[in-house]
Amino acid sequence: MLYEINEKALKLESEGKKIIRLNLGDPDMATPNEIIEAAYASMKAGKTKYSSSYGEKKLREKLAEIHNVPADNVVITPGSKWGVFASMYLLLKGGGNIIIPTPYWTAYELIAQSIGAKTKLLRTELQDEWKVDLEKLEKLIDNNTKMIILNNPNNPTSKVMDAETLDGIVEIANSKGITILSDEVYSTIAFTKTKSILEYDGDCRHILSNGFSKTFTMTGWRIGYIIAQKQLVDKITKLNQITINNVPVFIQEAALRGLELRKKIAERIKGEYRERANIATKTLAKAGLSFTKPEAPFYIFPKRPNLDSEKFTLDMLDKGVAVAPGTAFGDYREHFRISLTAPRNEIREGLEKISEALN
Amino acid sequence: MLYEINEKALKLESEGKKIIRLNLGDPDMATPNEIIEAAYASMKAGKTKYSSSYGEKKLREKLAEIHNVPADNVVITPGSKWGVFASMYLLLKGGGNIIIPTPYWTAYELIAQSIGAKTKLLRTELQDEWKVDLEKLEKLIDNNTKMIILNNPNNPTSKVMDAETLDGIVEIANSKGITILSDEVYSTIAFTKTKSILEYDGDCRHILSNGFSKTFTMTGWRIGYIIAQKQLVDKITKLNQITINNVPVFIQEAALRGLELRKKIAERIKGEYRERANIATKTLAKAGLSFTKPEAPFYIFPKRPNLDSEKFTLDMLDKGVAVAPGTAFGDYREHFRISLTAPRNEIREGLEKISEALN
Repeated sequence: MLYEINEKALKLESEGKKIIRLNLGDPDMATPNEIIEAAYASMKAGKTKYSSSYGEKKLREKLAEIHNVPADNVVITPGSKWGVFASMYLLLKGGGNIIIPTPYWTAYELIAQSIGAKTKLLRTELQDEWKVDLEKLEKLIDNNTKMIILNNPNNPTSKVMDAETLDGIVEIANSKGITILSDEVYSTIAFTKTKSILEYDGDCRHILSNGFSKTFTMTGWRIGYIIAQKQLVDKITKLNQITINNVPVFIQEAALRGLELRKKIAERIKGEYRERANIATKTLAKAGLSFTKPEAPFYIFPKRPNLDSEKFTLDMLDKGVAVAPGTAFGDYREHFRISLTAPRNEIREGLEKISEALN
Repeated sequence: MLYEINEKALKLESEGKKIIRLNLGDPDMATPNEIIEAAYASMKAGKTKYSSSYGEKKLREKLAEIHNVPADNVVITPGSKWGVFASMYLLLKGGGNIIIPTPYWTAYELIAQSIGAKTKLLRTELQDEWKVDLEKLEKLIDNNTKMIILNNPNNPTSKVMDAETLDGIVEIANSKGITILSDEVYSTIAFTKTKSILEYDGDCRHILSNGFSKTFTMTGWRIGYIIAQKQLVDKITKLNQITINNVPVFIQEAALRGLELRKKIAERIKGEYRERANIATKTLAKAGLSFTKPEAPFYIFPKRPNLDSEKFTLDMLDKGVAVAPGTAFGDYREHFRISLTAPRNEIREGLEKISEALN
């Protein structure tokens, strides 16, 4: 229902209606000007041709340096979602099942459905601070389990996984020969240090999915990357060759510029989201909602007992505020997701309307 | 072997070796400046966010107007190859087989292999002027045949399909309920009028795949489109939502600018390729090679009896000229493909080296 709400919001906007957009992880802020200028310079320099399906050498090398892995283990993708799709498609099209802790990003299950893989959902709860129960995880695993997907920091809860739990998950996965796909797209701008899946193995046994969208406000540019074993990187490259071919080189060069400026840009963005999170947590607590404090941009996933979140979401859209229903993230009918991806005044106005509606 | 040759050529170039690149359909000419400026203006205007997985309304409407179909039947894709993959993935992942006339663009079969669909190749020959034999086509069809892929004008032969043969194929497909996927990516700049699959049905019974790469020298930008029944357009959009999400809006606005200027741009490009084709046909005829005269940019697919085209291609790469072996397009060991996508002086030099090597 996440995408349906978005298409509906776009339609209402195209009809001239003002919608406060708190439904997507799409920052209101502009892409930094340095990045736009780098893209323009690159286009003017003729970087508009087919290129390697691995991605540009310089960009792969820079990412390799940042993550402390060989450049051969990096492949550039048109958005991190493509990296997730490609990894799942290649590892699971022959069959098998995937374990996904919930609440979870809808796309994981939609991808699994599309490629015909089974999913086993591992429920986590607000009252447990969204912690994965390792015993439950172990029981869910069977001989056909091929993958565990982690989203750390998590969308929709903005919870960073504690190192102890992550250690436990990796230990279980390693002992059973299961691949972890760790989607860490919010990690660079998290408020809390996030332990990366790459910290566990020098030889990229598991898969890191990451992107430029969130850190550099480049959502619509569609650029991300996968760090994995060379064998999988080669397979993703072959899949790129028969699908998207390559990410435009001028977009890759713009992303490289972003990486060069990443400390400055990430700090600025993080500071703004910290402010927004403070505003939101105060207002939502006042409205009597329960939630864990965001440890990363952009989301809060509050709970209200007996809420029918789909009805609530549609009602709010009529009132000019787009949020996402909890059911878009698993069986969380009493929750809804707020994205703090609008200017502060709009966030205030949107949160007030939400508080009123829940009164 | 097409992609391997290309990665090898890129590698040699990165090592400082000069390679005359006649191996890809990637024009040497720059993207027209008006298109680059439109992209820049769009980025500066903030068109850098997530957007509809259908594609931008204005672009869909413009394409609908050009092709005389409703805008609901148009979906924007990151390159026409993505449109081919998406169509095949959605129509064939449940099983079935595809008929493809050869010589053919490698990607069709690689996609089929990737999604687990069977291919049935329908051989055409130089001495028949690459005509599809309708009786043979009819015999190849069985109960599991789901799709016929046409590439018109054809890569690698640059042959435009005669209307009578196309009429016959459509009649057979319609009578058996088989979908035609017509890849017409070279049609706008063909030297000969190309009959489109859209001319056969007001309700888009079949699938048109097309793109901006060839007409507007936008290969590396990755933008194309599918025109099909609304049901398939909706399915491709859902696939876009879980994979590439959207083509960057600034790229879509740049493509729209191209469409507005299309008469001027297409004429200029066509004129240049006609010149190149004239140069090439003269030189190659002199070298004793057989081929059909190109009816579209960019390719010639000459034959030399007893040629081992893979060995020949690797030898030529060592001599600084990249071409593609005939075996990359089916069982055409005595053929190789030359792309006239280099400046005229390089084409002359490359053709001379080829003539010498064949002497």
